[in-house]
Amino acid sequence: MNIDNIGTKVSKWFQDSGESPQVIISSRIRLARNISNHRFTAHCDHQEKNAIISELKMAILQTSIGPLAQYIDIATASQLQKELLIERHLISKHLCRNRGPRGAIISEDEAFTAMLNEEDHLRMQVILPGLRLDQCWDVVNRIDTEIENQVRFAFDQRLGYLTACPTNVGTGIRVSLMLHLPALKMTKQIEKLLNATKEMKLAVRGLFGEGTDALGDFFQISNQITLGIKEEDIIAKLTQKLIPKIVEYELVAREHLLRHENSLLEDKIYRARGILENAYLINSKEALFLLSNLRLGINLGKIKDIDIATINELFMLTQPAHLQKNAGGSLTPNERDELRAKIIRNKLSTHKI
Amino acid sequence: MNIDNIGTKVSKWFQDSGESPQVIISSRIRLARNISNHRFTAHCDHQEKNAIISELKMAILQTSIGPLAQYIDIATASQLQKELLIERHLISKHLCRNRGPRGAIISEDEAFTAMLNEEDHLRMQVILPGLRLDQCWDVVNRIDTEIENQVRFAFDQRLGYLTACPTNVGTGIRVSLMLHLPALKMTKQIEKLLNATKEMKLAVRGLFGEGTDALGDFFQISNQITLGIKEEDIIAKLTQKLIPKIVEYELVAREHLLRHENSLLEDKIYRARGILENAYLINSKEALFLLSNLRLGINLGKIKDIDIATINELFMLTQPAHLQKNAGGSLTPNERDELRAKIIRNKLSTHKI
Repeated sequence: MNIDNIGTKVSKWFQDSGESPQVIISSRIRLARNISNHRFTAHCDHQEKNAIISELKMAILQTSIGPLAQYIDIATASQLQKELLIERHLISKHLCRNRGPRGAIISEDEAFTAMLNEEDHLRMQVILPGLRLDQCWDVVNRIDTEIENQVRFAFDQRLGYLTACPTNVGTGIRVSLMLHLPALKMTKQIEKLLNATKEMKLAVRGLFGEGTDALGDFFQISNQITLGIKEEDIIAKLTQKLIPKIVEYELVAREHLLRHENSLLEDKIYRARGILENAYLINSKEALFLLSNLRLGINLGKIKDIDIATINELFMLTQPAHLQKNAGGSLTPNERDELRAKIIRNKLSTHKI
Repeated sequence: MNIDNIGTKVSKWFQDSGESPQVIISSRIRLARNISNHRFTAHCDHQEKNAIISELKMAILQTSIGPLAQYIDIATASQLQKELLIERHLISKHLCRNRGPRGAIISEDEAFTAMLNEEDHLRMQVILPGLRLDQCWDVVNRIDTEIENQVRFAFDQRLGYLTACPTNVGTGIRVSLMLHLPALKMTKQIEKLLNATKEMKLAVRGLFGEGTDALGDFFQISNQITLGIKEEDIIAKLTQKLIPKIVEYELVAREHLLRHENSLLEDKIYRARGILENAYLINSKEALFLLSNLRLGINLGKIKDIDIATINELFMLTQPAHLQKNAGGSLTPNERDELRAKIIRNKLSTHKI
């Protein structure tokens, strides 16, 4: 993981399509932690922020993921570098917008990221393809323990881990899954599902987390409660109960469409393919929608000569900052739309299975 | 020309793409005539309408186009047959909606049609591909003279031919051209052109004449003045002055787009091709727009493996009544969209040059 290479290829963890790729794109767990003898980031001066970074950096780089990880100084990173990291889901917009010393530690396969001086001193995440929350938890929990051997986190016997925002107090955990729910959207059942998730105390967000809309049938579902329930219980409930139910709803809706709305479905899928393979201007929103339809076509067995890995790659590499990284310079929106269409055309016409 | 075969193939006259196919789709001249010793159609009872039909039918079938022409009784024709004739621009909606005895005489190549008991006793037209007004005039003028040898038309020495609507009095001629003006539309110059045509006393209408909107960049331009100017002068002015100017505007606009908006142009053209070759549901309006873009692509040399004849055929055969004729029964709108998409897909994938 060299910062100069970020953006030229798809993230390693995302090359593997994972279990249940039909519906579950990826699993992610993040933990929020703060060092006990420092104020929360928002109340720190630069000196204290630098001290926090030093302590965390040293501790994290000495953990088992340390040797292949790299520290990126966000305070001095270029706008393009920051946007690339956001597009790859490695850092948050919040970290970019923050001021003063702040950084990120990113593992070579980009599955592990630690943000330093975001809302909390430390926010670390593990992201893996498909339904792999157990594995995400094993990794992030292990790293967390390894760090805790060197750094004392702010912890209260009664409340648990203390965090800048009370919604994270306790376990400091956020467990989330990126789901692809095109059939629930087409059959207009998505609203019903979203209401049901609220009752299950789950939050539903768009592709880029908090405050973003669901785009192209992608929905990020995560736990809202962090206090009074063990991490393993949150994960077990999601993995064994809630997510399989949502996956089942989506698969039933797909089956319904196949039986009763096949021409509508085929039109959506093949039309998307026709446009992606032929258009000369595609904006990022349209690309997302069309690739989403193509993904559905692959998952339904209607498209056999394109694989999910190709779709994942196009999702990632046709984002605005990625396009500019690969073009080697800044591009106007129109130039981006042109390059995006070209990359998609070339990829779909030459890199078939 | 057997009425039962109408709709299975493209009209013979339309198979040939004509001169100036870049911009001018077709040329059409129609004459309005009434028999002198009968009231205008709107004032006739059934008996008189039948008498008018007898006289005109006998006269027309004895002209030089008679042997290969056929009479169609519109009063007893099925709804589908009438719609087929409208979609082929052979009869008017007005003739269909009229009540009582009425009919049409259509030549084998469908280039000549005579409507009996439409607004006037006789409305006859000659339609040919490209810019061929002189040829249209030669034919329709010859037939008109041949009919006049047997039937006495209502004619006033001062006014000329008398017609049901005063706008047709005099020559009873309407000269019109179907133009394809996608570049003027894309560059937003079409309004300017439409204003200019008004000053030139030309009427601009949509694909199906009076009261229809311009669809898919097709505009029908025709003379508005029929009185006080010789037929040959109307034709000469259009053929030598006005139409070449409009064609030039369109070609200049295409050149401009090629130089300055090439990616927008290519996106429009190749995206249309991608959708037409891949979609599974296409409504008639979308088909018109997409085929219009494909036609532009062929004319600009960007699409080389599809010819204009294929586009013409698809224009004609994917209209609602044609689809139902070829399916052998009535179709729901959704079934039509499905069949339309299938016909287009098959034609474009298998019948390339």
